[in-house]
Amino acid sequence: MKSIKIAVIGGGSSYTPELVEGLIQRKHLLPISELALVDVEAGRGKVEIIAGLTRRMLDRHGLQGVVVSVHYSPDEAIAGASFVLTQLRVGQLPARAADERLGLKYGLLGQETTGVGGFAKALRTIPVLLDIARKVECLSPDAWIINFTNPAGVVTEAVSRYSKAKIIGLCNVPISMHHMIANMMQQSYPNVQLRFAGLNHMVWVHQVLVNGKDETEQVLELLCNGAELTMNNIKEEPWPPEFLRALGAIPCPYHRYFYQTGKMLQEEKESAASKGTRAEQVMQVERQLFELYADPMLAHKPEQLSFRGGAFYSEVALELISSIHNNLGTQLVVNTMNRGAIHGLPDDAVIETNCIVDAQGAHPLVFGHLPDSMLSLTQQVKAFERLTIEAAVHGERKAALLALVTHPLIAGAALEPALLEEILQLNQAYLPQFQ
Amino acid sequence: MKSIKIAVIGGGSSYTPELVEGLIQRKHLLPISELALVDVEAGRGKVEIIAGLTRRMLDRHGLQGVVVSVHYSPDEAIAGASFVLTQLRVGQLPARAADERLGLKYGLLGQETTGVGGFAKALRTIPVLLDIARKVECLSPDAWIINFTNPAGVVTEAVSRYSKAKIIGLCNVPISMHHMIANMMQQSYPNVQLRFAGLNHMVWVHQVLVNGKDETEQVLELLCNGAELTMNNIKEEPWPPEFLRALGAIPCPYHRYFYQTGKMLQEEKESAASKGTRAEQVMQVERQLFELYADPMLAHKPEQLSFRGGAFYSEVALELISSIHNNLGTQLVVNTMNRGAIHGLPDDAVIETNCIVDAQGAHPLVFGHLPDSMLSLTQQVKAFERLTIEAAVHGERKAALLALVTHPLIAGAALEPALLEEILQLNQAYLPQFQ
Amino acid sequence: MKSIKIAVIGGGSSYTPELVEGLIQRKHLLPISELALVDVEAGRGKVEIIAGLTRRMLDRHGLQGVVVSVHYSPDEAIAGASFVLTQLRVGQLPARAADERLGLKYGLLGQETTGVGGFAKALRTIPVLLDIARKVECLSPDAWIINFTNPAGVVTEAVSRYSKAKIIGLCNVPISMHHMIANMMQQSYPNVQLRFAGLNHMVWVHQVLVNGKDETEQVLELLCNGAELTMNNIKEEPWPPEFLRALGAIPCPYHRYFYQTGKMLQEEKESAASKGTRAEQVMQVERQLFELYADPMLAHKPEQLSFRGGAFYSEVALELISSIHNNLGTQLVVNTMNRGAIHGLPDDAVIETNCIVDAQGAHPLVFGHLPDSMLSLTQQVKAFERLTIEAAVHGERKAALLALVTHPLIAGAALEPALLEEILQLNQAYLPQFQ
Amino acid sequence: MKSIKIAVIGGGSSYTPELVEGLIQRKHLLPISELALVDVEAGRGKVEIIAGLTRRMLDRHGLQGVVVSVHYSPDEAIAGASFVLTQLRVGQLPARAADERLGLKYGLLGQETTGVGGFAKALRTIPVLLDIARKVECLSPDAWIINFTNPAGVVTEAVSRYSKAKIIGLCNVPISMHHMIANMMQQSYPNVQLRFAGLNHMVWVHQVLVNGKDETEQVLELLCNGAELTMNNIKEEPWPPEFLRALGAIPCPYHRYFYQTGKMLQEEKESAASKGTRAEQVMQVERQLFELYADPMLAHKPEQLSFRGGAFYSEVALELISSIHNNLGTQLVVNTMNRGAIHGLPDDAVIETNCIVDAQGAHPLVFGHLPDSMLSLTQQVKAFERLTIEAAVHGERKAALLALVTHPLIAGAALEPALLEEILQLNQAYLPQFQ
Repeated sequence: MKSIKIAVIGGGSSYTPELVEGLIQRKHLLPISELALVDVEAGRGKVEIIAGLTRRMLDRHGLQGVVVSVHYSPDEAIAGASFVLTQLRVGQLPARAADERLGLKYGLLGQETTGVGGFAKALRTIPVLLDIARKVECLSPDAWIINFTNPAGVVTEAVSRYSKAKIIGLCNVPISMHHMIANMMQQSYPNVQLRFAGLNHMVWVHQVLVNGKDETEQVLELLCNGAELTMNNIKEEPWPPEFLRALGAIPCPYHRYFYQTGKMLQEEKESAASKGTRAEQVMQVERQLFELYADPMLAHKPEQLSFRGGAFYSEVALELISSIHNNLGTQLVVNTMNRGAIHGLPDDAVIETNCIVDAQGAHPLVFGHLPDSMLSLTQQVKAFERLTIEAAVHGERKAALLALVTHPLIAGAALEPALLEEILQLNQAYLPQFQ
Repeated sequence: MKSIKIAVIGGGSSYTPELVEGLIQRKHLLPISELALVDVEAGRGKVEIIAGLTRRMLDRHGLQGVVVSVHYSPDEAIAGASFVLTQLRVGQLPARAADERLGLKYGLLGQETTGVGGFAKALRTIPVLLDIARKVECLSPDAWIINFTNPAGVVTEAVSRYSKAKIIGLCNVPISMHHMIANMMQQSYPNVQLRFAGLNHMVWVHQVLVNGKDETEQVLELLCNGAELTMNNIKEEPWPPEFLRALGAIPCPYHRYFYQTGKMLQEEKESAASKGTRAEQVMQVERQLFELYADPMLAHKPEQLSFRGGAFYSEVALELISSIHNNLGTQLVVNTMNRGAIHGLPDDAVIETNCIVDAQGAHPLVFGHLPDSMLSLTQQVKAFERLTIEAAVHGERKAALLALVTHPLIAGAALEPALLEEILQLNQAYLPQFQ
Repeated sequence: MKSIKIAVIGGGSSYTPELVEGLIQRKHLLPISELALVDVEAGRGKVEIIAGLTRRMLDRHGLQGVVVSVHYSPDEAIAGASFVLTQLRVGQLPARAADERLGLKYGLLGQETTGVGGFAKALRTIPVLLDIARKVECLSPDAWIINFTNPAGVVTEAVSRYSKAKIIGLCNVPISMHHMIANMMQQSYPNVQLRFAGLNHMVWVHQVLVNGKDETEQVLELLCNGAELTMNNIKEEPWPPEFLRALGAIPCPYHRYFYQTGKMLQEEKESAASKGTRAEQVMQVERQLFELYADPMLAHKPEQLSFRGGAFYSEVALELISSIHNNLGTQLVVNTMNRGAIHGLPDDAVIETNCIVDAQGAHPLVFGHLPDSMLSLTQQVKAFERLTIEAAVHGERKAALLALVTHPLIAGAALEPALLEEILQLNQAYLPQFQ
Repeated sequence: MKSIKIAVIGGGSSYTPELVEGLIQRKHLLPISELALVDVEAGRGKVEIIAGLTRRMLDRHGLQGVVVSVHYSPDEAIAGASFVLTQLRVGQLPARAADERLGLKYGLLGQETTGVGGFAKALRTIPVLLDIARKVECLSPDAWIINFTNPAGVVTEAVSRYSKAKIIGLCNVPISMHHMIANMMQQSYPNVQLRFAGLNHMVWVHQVLVNGKDETEQVLELLCNGAELTMNNIKEEPWPPEFLRALGAIPCPYHRYFYQTGKMLQEEKESAASKGTRAEQVMQVERQLFELYADPMLAHKPEQLSFRGGAFYSEVALELISSIHNNLGTQLVVNTMNRGAIHGLPDDAVIETNCIVDAQGAHPLVFGHLPDSMLSLTQQVKAFERLTIEAAVHGERKAALLALVTHPLIAGAALEPALLEEILQLNQAYLPQFQ
């Protein structure tokens, strides 16, 4: 079996030990030769801590042969890699905190991937990802980029359309919903199959099969009766039963921002006032994690990482890598180009849906028509995403303004004097394309 | 030339004298034999006043031969008619006032054709229009229904899809914009051509031609510099120049509700507090108008009607009737089925766009792709409209709730407990389909 | 594991022993309780022979517990069945021979599934299949119809659109091509994956993967250099290399009728003159087979069946049944509704392509755009198929004539006086819908 | 009124006097300043004769002020022109005769615009037209190219897609059908309206209105009863009544090649044997016409031109020029990009259909769905056209071979060894792109 070099862009992330743990568990399926961790100079302290912990974890499981290298520019890491994992954060957590505070100032959700927060993050992130993609085109054209960087759907689409590098976007929402729904039905995970179709962080489960039998209605009734279904970074606001029954599909946790805007904004305001915004809270968690990681005696992923929010992150990443590497044809839920799978969206729009993954990449199953109400929300958010991509790639103020006008959670406030200017101002250091 | 019988459903409307004036001006093109005014029993007083004024106006212009009949059920009026004009209002102005007050209670626009107001009006109106359409199918299958009843696009689509009667929807917004833009450019009306595409009360002008030359940018610059463009029932909130330039098209006055939601809602609240809601103001205007109309010496359309808001109403109605009757092939802006004219909308969605009108009806010119930001708003509002139609036709609560969830001005508030129930409750008398 | 009853409509077919052999090989995956063989009264002799042989084969492998029942009307067989296999032939081989002879009279291909032959067979067969489908709807609504009856794509589409019964169409062409291409590449079958998209008996292989690597060009070069790829009922007419290279995909054996019409017709004429038409040859083979089958000592599938043309028939049928029964999610090539998989064809057109098959049926993978030249041929043949279905279902002479006009191998001759009338005349006994 | 310079590429054509006559008749609508005739050096004799006759015709009607210039390269003629009429013939009539003879050799129609003849002509012509279009882009970017050069639809699409010059394609088939159908109905031309949709030389009349009333069925019945409808270069082969009734639309004269292939080929063979091919006959007519034209006393279009086949040529050209120049918004049948007018064809496919023509060009009316049988033929011929364009523009042998395979009248013979090579060989002098 051919051995694999994996480059991890943003290797200094606190999530990396999760990934390493996953690699260790799958060592027989995925013969790794090198793990190349890349980060910015400013993150030198963190990535060195991560590299140290990684080496200790690998050693403990007899994987001393895996080279763990650290890089402060991506070129060497990408050259020869079979997979390039992108999990970076332009501007780090302070930029995210600034997004959140700006949103609150305008009475808008500033969530990391949705609303003005997602918009600002996309503007900062897309040029950096495209830069990496161009290096992959040159240095390792057969490599797959596995993108976790948020907003994952938008970033994946930008790379898919503006580069020739091969990319698949990933998110832990579908797998988390899968585990939660299996628990809810008191079934083992593999006995349950879910049919996903939508966009990243805006995906619905349209069908739940238990041992091949359609049990969607039963899951909806459990949710109507108070079963919980959320991520640990999103408030568990219950769904009105008459709404779930009308919808006939299971919304993802992030859908609360769209369907229950008032309550979610209220909660965000209160939380920001009492505990700080989400980014501010995460900064604290991160500090604690890195203190733990730095302990030279630690040689396993600490429990505390699970509070960080990335549950199942390594499971989904490594299943994907294994499906490609071993040409397995597994059915996975990933972000890839639509090509007609969901009607009424462009062929080159990146969607989140069930795909067959093999050595040639991700092949969506046809989904067909989304019901009118879901389709129109999807079309609207996708239009926002595409305008955001135009703005990010070309530094186009016009497209940026139209993107804000088009987002359902910004729309009527998009023309507030100064909103766009303030976003661009705040992020000036990361937006050379707008100079 | 074959003579024409016209039935006017809602003949007791204060607008009717405008129509009569138009008929008089075009008497050589449109040889009318009968004008059959239909209204509900409750409107007997008003329709009789209108009939009297109509007879005096016709007499004064030597049209004594035109029969003016009054009916309290539509059957006789429809039988033998070539055109059936529908300009009715289910629940009269008090129902509209209730819509507006309910919207304000929830912090939502309750505008007559947009938001919760338009939603409630559609639920009340669609079954009545379908009833008329079915009578037309039986009693006068070759007749054209010319629909002015608001929300005109939704009502026209409901009839187009659920009946075999021939229908075209009309609105005075396009012709009003045409006159205003011609004035702005200091050009005569016929020298200016406009390219419209969108939905009723949500239509953009995509191109302005002056003597065949594209002057769209110049019109946008005039608007950026403060040129006014509104209807007399919508506040002249100026458009931010950077927005107009980014959009590259001229929004209609009603677009302010979508793009400048905050300001428009603020204005609506203040206006309701000081002068009463729009319906409450109109009720006063109407009382005054009918006092004038009742004067047995009055034999012309009084000036005061122009304050009512229906400018150019008769011009557009009669141009349409004449184009059909005389097989003229004129280019008019009407509401008719899409059939591919705007990409990304269903074939049977009713849109507002430039059409060639001849004896066979309205034939849209192909428009092609709306820019992403306009397309996604159009798709969203159209999805709302189609769900509203399902709710209105079948008395479907689920569709009604999804319609509210889908409307951009209601969306995040749609799941407020009791919003839908309160709408249904308030309109109970007019919503037998929901019993 | 739930046990399975399988009904076989056309159970007296000479292919049935192939199916029985397959069931025996998969006895651990597919716990069969009953095999219900259905045939027409006229076929009593044959189906009894088959039943006898079937019982002997099952006994020999310790499957005495499987009930083998024989029926002369489908109702009892369908009731309680999980799978209904349809492999019938309306009018038996003499009707096929008449099709072939009629084609030759007009200088047209009269092939069983293509051209006038396929047209006549579809007219005879569709009403019978729809009748069975309606019985399945009533008597066993959860059952899957597995259709082998030719023209398999047309018949499957007719049932899909005109009945609520669940149906999947099957053909042994894709699996045969798979085996042949694997041999050509000197690879084992599972190491090779093929990407099919097209219509039944008009399907192309667009991509050949060997261990996940694209080797399409290499296969095309092997074909250019004389590698053989055909079915044993179709002449191995080699493909001009410049054509294969221009096409960039691997045609199926039946494509010779479309691309090499002159030569194929010539061969058909010569063969008919010397050895009789294909049907006439098959009648002889069948007689010999049944003599063998009747031997009370025979308890296995005889070698001679392989000359009959149904290679891999049981393999593909039983893989499909097992994927559904055991909810496997296997990737198989079947005939099912398009739903956007191939762009430019109706959603409800039945196509032949790679699908994931599980307990909920077949889910096509998106394919996207067929290259222009392949798409237009596919659209044309599909239009022929849909007109043929209209003709068959409604007994519509107009649709029948337009079907002939639309078929690429009939087109210019379709208006020959009497062609259509002669087809209807010859098949009068089987076409009550045209009376 | 701004005066107009018209450039005529192929000005030495025998049709030019028809154009000049039309200009004279419309002198008040179209104030011409210059008529610039362009031809190749080899045509010097003919273009000088035409220039002389043109000057005499203009003089006779008091239009001495119009400059008639002659050019042997297009640059000067195009500079400053408002309209560039293209009516050239690469390789002159001998190339056409060679096409026809080659077709007959292979038993195929070699018609000038259809089948192998149209294919060869497209390969010769497209590069020349693109060259002219590029000169228009540079020298007169606001000018409209009015293309008559055959195959007019293919050539117009090639220029539309591969150049920025503005182009509209024209043909005299629609106007000829309009005159013939008006005669058939004993109506004046303006009382009759026709609804066309299809491709150039493959267009159907889907609806006939007489004074606004649908009389399509009556026209079909007249045709069933022997009414004639053809062009003077196409044999009047009557349509089988059952076919016309099934089709429900009126085919154009050229449709006989597709629907009655056998008979038309038979007639072409006989005619070629007895009178020479069409090109050979035309050469003789042309010689006679130029003898007449050269007569210094002749100052009008001679009657004999009507035998040449270009009836109504000037009527349609000048109506188009006048609609653009005077921004009339007239409804005309022209060749322009589809943009959704006919469903199921690409947006940038050039189609022939009813358009509104004004100063901004041609705007198709939406047509919607063609019935299945017509749509699939249209898709197939359009696929042929697009492959031919690829071949012509890029000198792509692969696309050329696929084009032949895709044409319904060549298909099964396209793989005859040497057919493509012989076409390329014969036209070598005109196909530098294939060297």
